[in-house]
Amino acid sequence: MKKLLLVYGVLIMIFMVYSYNYFSKDPYMNAWDRMDGGLRGEIDEKYVMVTFQIGNEYWKNILKGFEDAAQALNVSVEYRGSTRYDLYEMSTVLEQVIARKPAGIAISAMDAEGLNPAIHKAVEAGIPVVLFDSNAPESDAYVFLGTNNYEAGRTAGHEMGKLLGGKGEVGIITLPNQNNHQERVRGFQAVMKEYYPNIAIVSIKDGKGDKLVSKQAAEDMMRDYPELKAIFTTEATGGVGVGSAVQNYRHIKIISFDTDLGTLDLVKDGTISATLAQGTWSMGYWSLQYLFHLHHRLTQQEMAEVAANPLPPYVDTGITVVTKENVEHFYAK
Amino acid sequence: MKKLLLVYGVLIMIFMVYSYNYFSKDPYMNAWDRMDGGLRGEIDEKYVMVTFQIGNEYWKNILKGFEDAAQALNVSVEYRGSTRYDLYEMSTVLEQVIARKPAGIAISAMDAEGLNPAIHKAVEAGIPVVLFDSNAPESDAYVFLGTNNYEAGRTAGHEMGKLLGGKGEVGIITLPNQNNHQERVRGFQAVMKEYYPNIAIVSIKDGKGDKLVSKQAAEDMMRDYPELKAIFTTEATGGVGVGSAVQNYRHIKIISFDTDLGTLDLVKDGTISATLAQGTWSMGYWSLQYLFHLHHRLTQQEMAEVAANPLPPYVDTGITVVTKENVEHFYAK
Repeated sequence: MKKLLLVYGVLIMIFMVYSYNYFSKDPYMNAWDRMDGGLRGEIDEKYVMVTFQIGNEYWKNILKGFEDAAQALNVSVEYRGSTRYDLYEMSTVLEQVIARKPAGIAISAMDAEGLNPAIHKAVEAGIPVVLFDSNAPESDAYVFLGTNNYEAGRTAGHEMGKLLGGKGEVGIITLPNQNNHQERVRGFQAVMKEYYPNIAIVSIKDGKGDKLVSKQAAEDMMRDYPELKAIFTTEATGGVGVGSAVQNYRHIKIISFDTDLGTLDLVKDGTISATLAQGTWSMGYWSLQYLFHLHHRLTQQEMAEVAANPLPPYVDTGITVVTKENVEHFYAK
Repeated sequence: MKKLLLVYGVLIMIFMVYSYNYFSKDPYMNAWDRMDGGLRGEIDEKYVMVTFQIGNEYWKNILKGFEDAAQALNVSVEYRGSTRYDLYEMSTVLEQVIARKPAGIAISAMDAEGLNPAIHKAVEAGIPVVLFDSNAPESDAYVFLGTNNYEAGRTAGHEMGKLLGGKGEVGIITLPNQNNHQERVRGFQAVMKEYYPNIAIVSIKDGKGDKLVSKQAAEDMMRDYPELKAIFTTEATGGVGVGSAVQNYRHIKIISFDTDLGTLDLVKDGTISATLAQGTWSMGYWSLQYLFHLHHRLTQQEMAEVAANPLPPYVDTGITVVTKENVEHFYAK
């Protein structure tokens, strides 16, 4: 009986020593050694995602990626943002987030310059910042993760070429004052010029990101160009507007952008032939990964002080063509 | 005594139940839940990096990044490659690597098409492949991680503009038949046109990636254009050749590319004013990260089957300008 007691005692001792070693890691070890045996943070390490128009369903899948990465890395996340498309409101939200000193902030820059002072303040205070979806090229943020809009426009161009069998008149409805949308148009035009000389872009109109304005623009186009075969719209709200305009002209094909509910339903019923899905989940997932690496200084140690950037400065999150065949996968789960 | 024995017994039971739960995770759980509490692989999970010219010091820092990621994720790595710049030899090495079914392969494609059959074979066999440094755009690889050469050329252009105070004659020595180098020249030219109308590019010559040929090209340029103020070389071997040509013409400034030992020494002694360092460590580090995510299916589950790409298709690993001020950091540690 005493022998058994001894064996039990030894076993418990071994367990305690093991536990002690496991939990008492030296906090002054270098970052790589501390992470030895897996990338893992602390649950009270909080990363914040900040956007404008917080209710917009576009952000949902980005947040899902952000949360999936947090689960994988054992850290916490929070989602904050302005309710409206309002730079002042968004700056205020960002200032509040910075004041609470989170482990990192991922921002969709609603303005290419307006948030730069707040971003500077965060980085100065040692809070890593990455940008996703919309860039602010002159800011202090470490990385931008988003769609290569020129390439997305090229993808749309190739889809259009296939759809029309390489010939016919097409129109474009876009936002001529927004850089992202200009790039989409530029990529589309380049592919037409290079690969489809028999497709003519006969009209480019401003849809103002509005359903009714885009509908009107599409109707004007169809009236002015009776031979029109298809329309490319560079954003989703316009796409839905164009969709409603062509209800009586079913021979007009549409290629649209993004995957909000209205667009997906029109893809499903065949009104929209194809729409381009952005890599939203990847934007969120890799934003958190990069913030985690910056927070834990998991970058090339000796270079961090001199390199323009200790992380890849740009990540192209890709494009997927959505058609009737795969549309079911894009409805939010 | 019996009471104590009972307490011990209960403690051991608790420990055993805990251990059992800890180690007997259901292999059919989804990937995210399996990773709960940190990204961590198995030590017998082997990832292989494959290049051409295995002895070239350029690969060293990429391998360092690959190894650092492996340490962080608790997996193993191996480095293989062809000794020469030889497509047949490299294909053979790659076939041998594929036959051993590693967890993933990162490849620098020495040819934009020649390795596509081998890459296809690997991906068909369920082995994830990513490409770094040199792309094969039509291959089945999931991701390309490398320098945006057009942007690198623009960075070189801005350095040149500053160096010459915005005016003077410059020459370029490059490899006109290689796409990467054409892009560097294109970016450089674009910046001159856009920002420095008083800088004239008077000559573009082929340095053939050879020290002596580049030296001769530089000497010809200096003779033909006595007003020449500077030379931009798009690759390192040429840069060292140009450096030796200007020993007697110290007023000629040089901007070069990459950070091999010869180039760094010429930056240090002032012969080369600036050279562009590629984000080599990042290429290796993030290649392994992406392979790890593919191997463990840590991508958006429902999208993996339909998305053109479950991961970001392109990662720009960035550029850092190296001058006398920061050159010490770039010597291999």
